[in-house]
Amino acid sequence: MEEQAQWEQASPEIQARIRTSFDRQGLMGLLGARITRIAPGRVHIVLPSRPEVTQQHGYFHAGATSAIADTSGGYAAFTLFPENSDMLTVEYKINLLAPVRRRPHRGGRNGLKSGRTLTVCQLEVFGVQDGRRSLVANGQQTLIRVNRPEG
Amino acid sequence: MEEQAQWEQASPEIQARIRTSFDRQGLMGLLGARITRIAPGRVHIVLPSRPEVTQQHGYFHAGATSAIADTSGGYAAFTLFPENSDMLTVEYKINLLAPVRRRPHRGGRNGLKSGRTLTVCQLEVFGVQDGRRSLVANGQQTLIRVNRPEG
Amino acid sequence: MEEQAQWEQASPEIQARIRTSFDRQGLMGLLGARITRIAPGRVHIVLPSRPEVTQQHGYFHAGATSAIADTSGGYAAFTLFPENSDMLTVEYKINLLAPVRRRPHRGGRNGLKSGRTLTVCQLEVFGVQDGRRSLVANGQQTLIRVNRPEG
Amino acid sequence: MEEQAQWEQASPEIQARIRTSFDRQGLMGLLGARITRIAPGRVHIVLPSRPEVTQQHGYFHAGATSAIADTSGGYAAFTLFPENSDMLTVEYKINLLAPVRRRPHRGGRNGLKSGRTLTVCQLEVFGVQDGRRSLVANGQQTLIRVNRPEG
Repeated sequence: MEEQAQWEQASPEIQARIRTSFDRQGLMGLLGARITRIAPGRVHIVLPSRPEVTQQHGYFHAGATSAIADTSGGYAAFTLFPENSDMLTVEYKINLLAPVRRRPHRGGRNGLKSGRTLTVCQLEVFGVQDGRRSLVANGQQTLIRVNRPEG
Repeated sequence: MEEQAQWEQASPEIQARIRTSFDRQGLMGLLGARITRIAPGRVHIVLPSRPEVTQQHGYFHAGATSAIADTSGGYAAFTLFPENSDMLTVEYKINLLAPVRRRPHRGGRNGLKSGRTLTVCQLEVFGVQDGRRSLVANGQQTLIRVNRPEG
Repeated sequence: MEEQAQWEQASPEIQARIRTSFDRQGLMGLLGARITRIAPGRVHIVLPSRPEVTQQHGYFHAGATSAIADTSGGYAAFTLFPENSDMLTVEYKINLLAPVRRRPHRGGRNGLKSGRTLTVCQLEVFGVQDGRRSLVANGQQTLIRVNRPEG
Repeated sequence: MEEQAQWEQASPEIQARIRTSFDRQGLMGLLGARITRIAPGRVHIVLPSRPEVTQQHGYFHAGATSAIADTSGGYAAFTLFPENSDMLTVEYKINLLAPVRRRPHRGGRNGLKSGRTLTVCQLEVFGVQDGRRSLVANGQQTLIRVNRPEG
């Protein structure tokens, strides 16, 4: 799961669809998360550190960490399917590896196995400080492909 | 896991500790979540429905659902240990059973097994509408007991 | 999740289908597992303790515990669907709550949520000794309904 | 998670300890599994295909797949700690990606994060046929370090 220096970018159409969808996610706006990269099978979301996303000791709340991990996984799967598809999270499991304070979070992910119906994604969240990153949470997510709802 | 009509309440000291801790959780305030019941081994958190906690189709975001599930599990475990203990989430797994729109969420939970170091909790989230509730997510969480940090 | 003294039994047809299927599971025979109860949404499998199912310290191997948990969950889901359906495990998560030595294992389970495509099951494994049982593992499983393969 | 052509081998002492421990695992012997590689943070176990490890349709049983995944993860963590330590599985989650018939299985893994008490491992199981391998299951495991029991 090493990052490559050069990444293929997703097509402009896919990027536009994902950014439009992301902007409609009330929770991402509330948290202050933003998308920073959309590649085939991989989407990065950054969540800046601020008191509103913490738990009682000032660390990132596991719920905030999970929210960006889950969202990045869903959109990463989204890059692999045709336009009329949508991906819903069936379930995920996440390990919180280290309490993180005062570091922006970045959730990336790596597509693992896409079937016709189900897709399984690896979820990774890094804490970034002074240009250095460390893995703070990782997980595994199952998504189901559905026809796009009209809402 | 049927709910009983009469529940034992946690002691006033434990209730006060949990409410104080909850109020310091920036994320719970941001989401608009509130605690509605603190019993030994079981804590209820309600998350009212509003656009700020949704994903792109107006359903509750899995991250918001998970955040209250994870938090209620942590505090439920918290009710079982002495005052100088704290509970950190090691990991959890959650199934999103049904997309939920326009219903307040309520995360309850049921303590399962508490060891000296690790505790395993069942996580349940219900959607409530017109006084009727339905299970919308359920999961399982592993917590580790640590000495309370000073922060 | 208390057990009731009186359980409804599954229909003779469903019981016969499950027993026939179970007998074709090479692994269950190899382990020495057997079915002891088939009720709608709940199947019990007993795995007697013997050295061949242990890990290096003489405890039940997590793999043996998981195998009966996974199998009982699959058959429990199987009781809820028409004859031409089959259930495949998509994923499961299991917590090993306590090392268990010299006690037969029994995996029961409790159906949780069955949709048209996916079913989510609670998995429970008990250690039984001198007529007393204790929960030794519990988990959560996602199954997918497929048309019965011909094999 | 690409495999490198050249791997560092674990020390002869660690290899000997793991092989001795593995030989005491009744279940591994019963299944017919064997260790094929012991590197720091990575252990390979091969499970040949035979009817005794299948489910009702002749595919590898999820329980057999899980047993080698769980075991390889535990030993991989074992390579990273001093001799008086032992690793117990706290929990794991595994996705069964594809039904597999008539192919030997090989469980490798990749150590992820080792703390003083808890270690989180990635679990991977490949089906191998005609020299080609494909990922058939992957998961994530939490282990706890304990003092070695005397048994």
